[in-house]
Amino acid sequence: MLGGMQDWELRVPRLIDHAAREHGRREIVSRWADGTQSRSDWAGIARDAKKLAQALERMGCRPGDRIATLAMNHAHHLAAWYGAIGMGGVIHTINPRLFDDQLVYIANHAEDRVLLYDRQFQPIVDRLRERWTTIEHYVVMDGDGPDGFRATVDAEDGAYAWVEGAEREPCMLCYTSGTTGHPKGVLYTHRSSVIHALAGVATWLLNFSPRAVVLPVVPMFHAAAWGMPFAGAIAGAKFVFSAVNDAAVLCDLMNRERVTHSAGVPTVWLAMFAHMDATGEAPRYLEQATIGGSAAPRAMIERIMGMGVEVKHLWGMTETSPIGTAGTAPPGWDVMTQGERLDLIGRQGSIPFGIELRVIGDDGSEQPRDGSSSGRLQVRGPWVVERYFKADASAVDADNWFDTGDVALLHPDGTMQITDRAKDVIKSGGEWISSVELENAAVGCLGVAEAAAIGVHHPRWDERPILLVVRKPGSGVTAADIHAHLAAHVAKWWLPDAVLFVDELPHTATGKLLKTELRERYKDFRLEAA
Amino acid sequence: MLGGMQDWELRVPRLIDHAAREHGRREIVSRWADGTQSRSDWAGIARDAKKLAQALERMGCRPGDRIATLAMNHAHHLAAWYGAIGMGGVIHTINPRLFDDQLVYIANHAEDRVLLYDRQFQPIVDRLRERWTTIEHYVVMDGDGPDGFRATVDAEDGAYAWVEGAEREPCMLCYTSGTTGHPKGVLYTHRSSVIHALAGVATWLLNFSPRAVVLPVVPMFHAAAWGMPFAGAIAGAKFVFSAVNDAAVLCDLMNRERVTHSAGVPTVWLAMFAHMDATGEAPRYLEQATIGGSAAPRAMIERIMGMGVEVKHLWGMTETSPIGTAGTAPPGWDVMTQGERLDLIGRQGSIPFGIELRVIGDDGSEQPRDGSSSGRLQVRGPWVVERYFKADASAVDADNWFDTGDVALLHPDGTMQITDRAKDVIKSGGEWISSVELENAAVGCLGVAEAAAIGVHHPRWDERPILLVVRKPGSGVTAADIHAHLAAHVAKWWLPDAVLFVDELPHTATGKLLKTELRERYKDFRLEAA
Repeated sequence: MLGGMQDWELRVPRLIDHAAREHGRREIVSRWADGTQSRSDWAGIARDAKKLAQALERMGCRPGDRIATLAMNHAHHLAAWYGAIGMGGVIHTINPRLFDDQLVYIANHAEDRVLLYDRQFQPIVDRLRERWTTIEHYVVMDGDGPDGFRATVDAEDGAYAWVEGAEREPCMLCYTSGTTGHPKGVLYTHRSSVIHALAGVATWLLNFSPRAVVLPVVPMFHAAAWGMPFAGAIAGAKFVFSAVNDAAVLCDLMNRERVTHSAGVPTVWLAMFAHMDATGEAPRYLEQATIGGSAAPRAMIERIMGMGVEVKHLWGMTETSPIGTAGTAPPGWDVMTQGERLDLIGRQGSIPFGIELRVIGDDGSEQPRDGSSSGRLQVRGPWVVERYFKADASAVDADNWFDTGDVALLHPDGTMQITDRAKDVIKSGGEWISSVELENAAVGCLGVAEAAAIGVHHPRWDERPILLVVRKPGSGVTAADIHAHLAAHVAKWWLPDAVLFVDELPHTATGKLLKTELRERYKDFRLEAA
Repeated sequence: MLGGMQDWELRVPRLIDHAAREHGRREIVSRWADGTQSRSDWAGIARDAKKLAQALERMGCRPGDRIATLAMNHAHHLAAWYGAIGMGGVIHTINPRLFDDQLVYIANHAEDRVLLYDRQFQPIVDRLRERWTTIEHYVVMDGDGPDGFRATVDAEDGAYAWVEGAEREPCMLCYTSGTTGHPKGVLYTHRSSVIHALAGVATWLLNFSPRAVVLPVVPMFHAAAWGMPFAGAIAGAKFVFSAVNDAAVLCDLMNRERVTHSAGVPTVWLAMFAHMDATGEAPRYLEQATIGGSAAPRAMIERIMGMGVEVKHLWGMTETSPIGTAGTAPPGWDVMTQGERLDLIGRQGSIPFGIELRVIGDDGSEQPRDGSSSGRLQVRGPWVVERYFKADASAVDADNWFDTGDVALLHPDGTMQITDRAKDVIKSGGEWISSVELENAAVGCLGVAEAAAIGVHHPRWDERPILLVVRKPGSGVTAADIHAHLAAHVAKWWLPDAVLFVDELPHTATGKLLKTELRERYKDFRLEAA
């Protein structure tokens, strides 16, 4: 027996239709790479998207085709998403910070037919054009010429009806660049994206409303900017995009456009703090700072909270669309001490409806939610990957559990805490030492700009931690200072056997510490048995 | 080409699983009809639901079977919903205020197999038991005997796995009692209920969060208590249920349990105001008052806003699950005058993602959003009815538009305003007079408790309005007073040709004015040509 409700497929074009119809005058502000600024609105984005869909069809694109972007955040990138998806295509956001071989691999693997790119990435296009074997058309997002976005869409009349289809058809492709092997593509569906967006607007996740003014510092090529361009259409939020992520530019934009919601990785806030300290300026209208990508140090959370801004820790990954968990004020928030609040917000947050999480111990059994039993974090749900693009095998087990590669624990209140990446855990004498916790404790020491903890071979304990430290400019912090600071924050047997100062640390294209390279670099580092 | 995301059916049991797992200790408080109070939590509701599912199977129930309730709001009713749905059944909430013939019709039409009912409705059961031809088992929700809910569920061990199935299978059945003809059943699906709940928690609709403490004054038999028992499971809200809706009881409960969210029809607030005026007590922790079912008068909105409480006007109907539109603070809220805010909140709100609305004029064309062109309101979306239960014909047109029977207009900002029920509009000289607006204006007159405007035959204008008024106790308000008051609020040609005082007005089972009866009663009332 079937129920008596309407069929209404969960398709992404419904998002832009809703935004254009119900929030059409809500602004979309773009600060371009050349320093100019332009204003559009949801109705304008919808118009451009329809025209782009026509232009893509004119170029020969058909439903299912991949349309790539190599672009920062701005209105044309937003219109490109909705236009490509609206003509039945799959928008493929490419991270311009990837290495050439990766850029070549993923565009060819995706079989992209069109590339829309920012002028600032012209050198990449010039270098790789010959190696990209499937791209037939190039459109310059911020170009003034006949191959520019504006000229391309303005040649069309916009009288266009979105391509209809089933909700389990794909709409978006994002590659994850692991530290080993080829990048893998996660192929989002209309259904997964719409459910993710519907869930995402809730107070405990993105906390969007029609009054929200959102500046996504996180790039649109990074896990779909955490789904904000879709969730924002549901809410009718105003967006403020910046094609450059300089703290002075962001702070100025935030204040001029009265930005209430920002979202980015922790390093964004390190730069913002430096700007605030140097100039005395600060974001004045901010209500919520969503931080994800990697864990925000406690001191950072405390400083932002001190500005009267709600800090929301978000955990997720490209494979989870990407929202997995997010911190939120629980029922007892009003009677919690500042210390309890910081402890709580320092974790990766609570599990929303739509996400199921479990932690699996070494013996393969599910760990209790006791705040101490850690293990491999697994996830499943309607916006979690089942199979990578073109993969022969499923990415999940028989019960749909996807192994995140993170090591985590669950607290009795249901909050989740990432303790490490599984491959970065330091295994000392059969016990696990969290490299992330060591690093977070270290950056709390005055004079430490950044720190990386890795395990190196030890004749007695198998592995022992060493700490690689980048000093803040002008700081004379010593190994003994750091050692003393750490001793007050971690167990004695976690203390690194050596503290080494370096000028800089290697990072992945998405800004994460490149531990594989560090382990390779220090593989011959010798510790002696104590 | 299909995308690479997981299949994860949108099934209602996932809601209670989520609530029990992530918000298990969040309380569910029940104030029973006999004045006692009990406390459970989401984990307790889930346990009872699993045991009830076992008990229902033991009674012979199978997936697809209808399980009926005749009950007020309390924890057992909540567990009954999740238990019946969890065993694959369809929960059928019966409105105990219906007339006997309707109660007989709908239980037989639904082919209910089990009835769970409150002791206070024992007289109904005694009267109708012989006429209900399909009900095999009776369970007393608040009964102490062997046929009581507690004994029934405690005989089971709770080791139960929810019945799995497709998301388009039905989960709930609600009948609408129109003013003519047999009630019609709306058969909600798992999919429609979960999408409705996911959408419903947003700030612009129910505005739920894990910190919300919700007292749904609206009964669970009235359009699924506006979906709150499902949306609340997503949010992990605390619920405070009362089996009686006396203002003194509600006010006391609200303050003792620190209720932040209430939801009910306007008359709830009339009673609460009387209680506040008489005792000096008031709900002290309330943050949001959601008002639906019929339009809240401006004076009511103003007084509640004056208490520092956000007023949310909700429009919907059983056929829309029921959320259609809801008022919310738009981007310009902070710079609006009090008068502008009242104008805005007095309307039925904005259109959320998932709902499409249009207004169709007399000539069948779509009306512009100009704030003045009214017509029949039509709606479609994933939680809107397609076909009534057992109906041969669809309830919608070829494009899925459902005609609500309301007359409405859309403002340029996208807010919707109900001006009347289509059948209650007064057609005077080819122009429309809104009976609802006349009534709202009349109750703003000192001394008027309730008012009903109906059209009666007029030899020259075809129809003219007359106003039937119930005075407040002790009030000596005259027809001239009311006439003078109305003259300041409505167009001159809208002024009623007669004002008649009556002791009371007839209402439907859901508390709405029974205009059909009034029109019948006054059909021979004669107005003379002026």
